[in-house]
Amino acid sequence: MEINGVYIEDTFAEAFPIWVSRVLITAATKKWAKIAATEATGFGCSVIMCPAEAGIEKYVPPSKTPDGRPGFIIQICHPKKSELEHQMLERLGQCVLTCPTTAIFDAMGDMADEQLKVGFKLKFFGDGYEKKDELYGRKVYKIPIMGGEFITEAKFGIKKGVAGGNFFIMADTNASALIAAEAAVNAIASVDGVITPFPGGVVASGSKVGASNPKYKFMVATTNHKMCPTLKGVVEDSEIPEDVNGVYEIVIDGVDEESVKEAMKQGILAATRVKGVKKITAGNYGGKLGKYQFNLRELFE
Amino acid sequence: MEINGVYIEDTFAEAFPIWVSRVLITAATKKWAKIAATEATGFGCSVIMCPAEAGIEKYVPPSKTPDGRPGFIIQICHPKKSELEHQMLERLGQCVLTCPTTAIFDAMGDMADEQLKVGFKLKFFGDGYEKKDELYGRKVYKIPIMGGEFITEAKFGIKKGVAGGNFFIMADTNASALIAAEAAVNAIASVDGVITPFPGGVVASGSKVGASNPKYKFMVATTNHKMCPTLKGVVEDSEIPEDVNGVYEIVIDGVDEESVKEAMKQGILAATRVKGVKKITAGNYGGKLGKYQFNLRELFE
Amino acid sequence: MEINGVYIEDTFAEAFPIWVSRVLITAATKKWAKIAATEATGFGCSVIMCPAEAGIEKYVPPSKTPDGRPGFIIQICHPKKSELEHQMLERLGQCVLTCPTTAIFDAMGDMADEQLKVGFKLKFFGDGYEKKDELYGRKVYKIPIMGGEFITEAKFGIKKGVAGGNFFIMADTNASALIAAEAAVNAIASVDGVITPFPGGVVASGSKVGASNPKYKFMVATTNHKMCPTLKGVVEDSEIPEDVNGVYEIVIDGVDEESVKEAMKQGILAATRVKGVKKITAGNYGGKLGKYQFNLRELFE
Amino acid sequence: MEINGVYIEDTFAEAFPIWVSRVLITAATKKWAKIAATEATGFGCSVIMCPAEAGIEKYVPPSKTPDGRPGFIIQICHPKKSELEHQMLERLGQCVLTCPTTAIFDAMGDMADEQLKVGFKLKFFGDGYEKKDELYGRKVYKIPIMGGEFITEAKFGIKKGVAGGNFFIMADTNASALIAAEAAVNAIASVDGVITPFPGGVVASGSKVGASNPKYKFMVATTNHKMCPTLKGVVEDSEIPEDVNGVYEIVIDGVDEESVKEAMKQGILAATRVKGVKKITAGNYGGKLGKYQFNLRELFE
Repeated sequence: MEINGVYIEDTFAEAFPIWVSRVLITAATKKWAKIAATEATGFGCSVIMCPAEAGIEKYVPPSKTPDGRPGFIIQICHPKKSELEHQMLERLGQCVLTCPTTAIFDAMGDMADEQLKVGFKLKFFGDGYEKKDELYGRKVYKIPIMGGEFITEAKFGIKKGVAGGNFFIMADTNASALIAAEAAVNAIASVDGVITPFPGGVVASGSKVGASNPKYKFMVATTNHKMCPTLKGVVEDSEIPEDVNGVYEIVIDGVDEESVKEAMKQGILAATRVKGVKKITAGNYGGKLGKYQFNLRELFE
Repeated sequence: MEINGVYIEDTFAEAFPIWVSRVLITAATKKWAKIAATEATGFGCSVIMCPAEAGIEKYVPPSKTPDGRPGFIIQICHPKKSELEHQMLERLGQCVLTCPTTAIFDAMGDMADEQLKVGFKLKFFGDGYEKKDELYGRKVYKIPIMGGEFITEAKFGIKKGVAGGNFFIMADTNASALIAAEAAVNAIASVDGVITPFPGGVVASGSKVGASNPKYKFMVATTNHKMCPTLKGVVEDSEIPEDVNGVYEIVIDGVDEESVKEAMKQGILAATRVKGVKKITAGNYGGKLGKYQFNLRELFE
Repeated sequence: MEINGVYIEDTFAEAFPIWVSRVLITAATKKWAKIAATEATGFGCSVIMCPAEAGIEKYVPPSKTPDGRPGFIIQICHPKKSELEHQMLERLGQCVLTCPTTAIFDAMGDMADEQLKVGFKLKFFGDGYEKKDELYGRKVYKIPIMGGEFITEAKFGIKKGVAGGNFFIMADTNASALIAAEAAVNAIASVDGVITPFPGGVVASGSKVGASNPKYKFMVATTNHKMCPTLKGVVEDSEIPEDVNGVYEIVIDGVDEESVKEAMKQGILAATRVKGVKKITAGNYGGKLGKYQFNLRELFE
Repeated sequence: MEINGVYIEDTFAEAFPIWVSRVLITAATKKWAKIAATEATGFGCSVIMCPAEAGIEKYVPPSKTPDGRPGFIIQICHPKKSELEHQMLERLGQCVLTCPTTAIFDAMGDMADEQLKVGFKLKFFGDGYEKKDELYGRKVYKIPIMGGEFITEAKFGIKKGVAGGNFFIMADTNASALIAAEAAVNAIASVDGVITPFPGGVVASGSKVGASNPKYKFMVATTNHKMCPTLKGVVEDSEIPEDVNGVYEIVIDGVDEESVKEAMKQGILAATRVKGVKKITAGNYGGKLGKYQFNLRELFE
């Protein structure tokens, strides 16, 4: 199959279940909402070594938020429910509560599988001076702080979502692959329910499970040497085509299979429109590890 | 003492020792260096609940970096040396190694008290395909990745620095205090050797040790009720002056006492130039907890 | 009338007819589309002294643009049709054609009153090497340039729109008014069909027609002294309330009356949510100069 | 000659005299200073069709500005002195005076060849309510506006500078050339005294004087067909090497020859460090039109 002249490999992305929270951060101005959302989702690429997977899902204009102020929806994700709650308390308590003029509301709504009492736990910071209230049809706590009052919804919904949706962009040069990756991330940014948790949404260093080097057996993950352009003539099992010199991966987490598939589709479409892109493929473990399989070609049927 | 008509309280900021690393992240473009630096320093406000204190210190133009590419110096800080190394490995390995076109170099140089073999440990990701080399007079590892080769210096210096330099901005309205806080952060950004680790450099929710509410004794820290404008007429021990309705704090970490003091000085100067600022004060524990005391008035002698 | 506790004056904004063009600029990445849109709409606040009124209306995601790439819709406006064409040729020819990876498409569509052959005229830059083509159901020209081929739609629609929709935000301090103005601009940014052409969308220096000072009669416009907080106790005809010390104006241009009214409504709502805002009013010339009158209170009926 | 493996052609950039102004715009925060600087320098790529050439030269931290606030130095340039004054009045009067919290100061200082009474003329906007004063050792006017008082220095220095310093980046793919162009602009941004007036600092559509197509003789300038990659096999006089598929130009204006040469040097160095760049060349008219000639190879001697 070719799309916009780019070969789409007959393969699939293998993805995993993950617990997802979806929090709306509002602030007096879009700028401060963005600052809080960025800080709260930093150091959140992959749970391999980060304490959570996190990212900004989308901007919500004032006319669509409970308090009529500009906001950003972020996702914080973790495979373990208890650890997700821990991460929410830390990230919201340290990176949003501390940020000027912010407030937080649940953005999972009816999609939620369960409710976590994150706001209830944050309110203890109020030292008894906090107030329970109902605002905009939501149960909230108002916590007095130096910057005024911090509003947090009492409960935040979480649901079983999908982690690790992915595709690889292979191009004639590193620069072509990089521009295509940026274009893909731009496209995915407009799909509801998903985040691209890596820096700028792009992965420059793909990994494989374990190590092939016998001396490095202590490593949990090492570079995916088959996908390294500089090892094209060096390793026997290279999967880099002759005309490819640049590879980037896009990784997607989302609230459900449909949103991740839509994100993969839009991202791939955008990447194929960039000159120099030669091939799109995806990462999997032969279907042995992950619960979900997203076939690339089926996205376009 | 008054500066630009603003009262400077006769008090001091109480600060603490912390281990500081200083890493230069370069990339093909300033944009990608910024993305990596932002991701690597996210979720890094305070070690009370974040796994590290981290921030972007400054931009370094191509003419001043080892590889002639644009870069940002970040600081990653932790009170415990072993935990600092852990955080460096995780943040550099997950948020920079994965970011397109980046490389990392030590930026502590001769100031270092000790060297951590962070690059040496990161290189195992190369699965044996990595190469040891010397570039720009530095010992580096070249790790093959999808995006080409990731260059990391072998060792990164760390030193005993200072955490928790601070001052409070009190103004007629919340908005005046907020603009003044932003101005202060802008000014501090040009002081070498320091970071302002909170979101946008500003703290909206100051805390005190423990809780005053007997039911909340399980809390390690709660809101500094004396500094909450909405509690001015509510609590007996409020420290909010009659004409003050907005308070923000600036927290500063740095490589040494001198840089933190210079940052406090420049930040306070900038804040006092904003209309509506009434008073500058600082946070301390009566001098009982911290190793360092920075008297506000002495900064201007 | 009060909204969120803020007094809405019983007055109206007086606005004028203006010719409006609406151009979609797409690029390989959102970043480059934004750069082109920003350059093309710069120096475009008011036709009093700028050669056009111009601004970015909104971002359009790849899934919604003709070429599947990220784009921004800009508006370029001028009271004279011939001058609008001139401005479009200059701004698109010098600030977009020159910008890497961009393309331009008509975004006025069926709303257009007339069509200007802007693409047809730009194509002469191709020196005969350009090609006429049909892409995405649109007639376009492909002009060979260093960066590849520049695609421009042949014709761009223009329509009679509205210039000078406005409201004034009066607050307790300059900083409160500034934060409220930023919030208002954030809210207006999500209304289709409008731009806020001044810097950051905000006007800091309102003007009146002519001068009151007899020595300054040569001036076409001078400061609206009645609205200057620093002249509150100085001029007899000051309109600054006792409790107001900061005033900013928001000016709105748009494709029709409905969009400008909706923008005024959303902007005022957002401003009234910011603490310290005391009053909303609007600017008019007693109804003698402008074709349109937008009563503030009627916006909320 | 090769630099970092990239061929540097033995040719020269041909540049022209231009009148240059250098204005420091300060504001309460870096953000608002940037907004004003961006608006004031927009629609300012080339005097071929823009009313001026303009750009942001550099950021100046609060500790280095007269009023201790963050600022940006912009340049506004025009071949004619009278037209430069006109442009300064319009751009500063419409795009900075109107922007919240800004002030403007001369940044040409002792370099100036002449002084323009720009502040003196702007003050008439004050309708007689303005005040003459001396601040920070400078003669200024304080003009009452809605946002408080606008401070403008009375006189602004201008000098005979240099327009049209340039070099071309030729690379294997469009994307490689684009990343290299961005890297070059990043590097030039740290050279004092210069601007890169085109969008994002990059020129995607180089032009030649007049037209080669006899039917297009009415055109003042048309596409430089020799430098268009898509015309490589089409026109006989193509100058695109076999292995080149992407070309971008960097154009530099500056206060003097030395600063423009330093900018060309730093820009070329940065471009050659990007993978895929094949050749650097420059644009000239055989030395017949411009006053200045900057030989590429001599930059590196």
